[in-house]
Amino acid sequence: MTRLSQFAAALAVATVAALPLAARASDPTDIIDYRKHVMKTLGAQSASMAMTLQGKAPAENFVLHAEALAIVASTALQAFKEKVEGGGSKPDVWAKWPDFEKRMTELATNTAALAKAAREGGVAAAGPKVQGALTCKGCHDIYREKK
Amino acid sequence: MTRLSQFAAALAVATVAALPLAARASDPTDIIDYRKHVMKTLGAQSASMAMTLQGKAPAENFVLHAEALAIVASTALQAFKEKVEGGGSKPDVWAKWPDFEKRMTELATNTAALAKAAREGGVAAAGPKVQGALTCKGCHDIYREKK
Repeated sequence: MTRLSQFAAALAVATVAALPLAARASDPTDIIDYRKHVMKTLGAQSASMAMTLQGKAPAENFVLHAEALAIVASTALQAFKEKVEGGGSKPDVWAKWPDFEKRMTELATNTAALAKAAREGGVAAAGPKVQGALTCKGCHDIYREKK
Repeated sequence: MTRLSQFAAALAVATVAALPLAARASDPTDIIDYRKHVMKTLGAQSASMAMTLQGKAPAENFVLHAEALAIVASTALQAFKEKVEGGGSKPDVWAKWPDFEKRMTELATNTAALAKAAREGGVAAAGPKVQGALTCKGCHDIYREKK
């Protein structure tokens, strides 16, 4: 399906507007695709935010990337809830779910706190929270297949 | 530079908190990397949002993806402002800048309206705005190198 026809299909569903709120994907490919989109966004937004702090991207975008990061981080745990192995995820995601859940919940909590600090106090307030929020590597070392 | 050391460097800059707001990247690699991160996010968040409307991802995440899309779309024009060819961008981005600028501004405006409608009225309100907001393909056909 091309991106354009995906959007057309999305629109068709959207205009019906009858999708139950609890709707869940059941196709394994969709489940893996969705969590890849979520993780790719987290990687791209973390990197973008880091670049704004390093003088490698417009500094005034720091807050925007922090906000986008927090929003998408809030979807990340849910994206893994259905046990579908593959797509770069180790089986331990589900075998050690309580630990995985704890880490993903912390990511959401910490990036939300980072975004709030960024919004209210800019880099000065949010800077000290950056390292604590970006726990990507610690989690990838355990739960992501080596590339 | 590994991602971890990038973050450490970012933190070091953040704690100094002395970065002037108008700081701009000047390294061509950084400029291209940054706009790739931005465009990759737009692609991933558009696709995620479409999946929520198609029943392929949790429907309740529709609003979150619409919000993330709008935030990152608001950084996109700026990410291309410095004329550095390459990274998949055709030279026409800068040769036809007024048209490119118009399109990127519309993307930001339309995704912001979509996110607002989603926030206030959910899929029923935002659905009819989806197709008009996601103008990715029209712009890519003109300004992105064929893969």
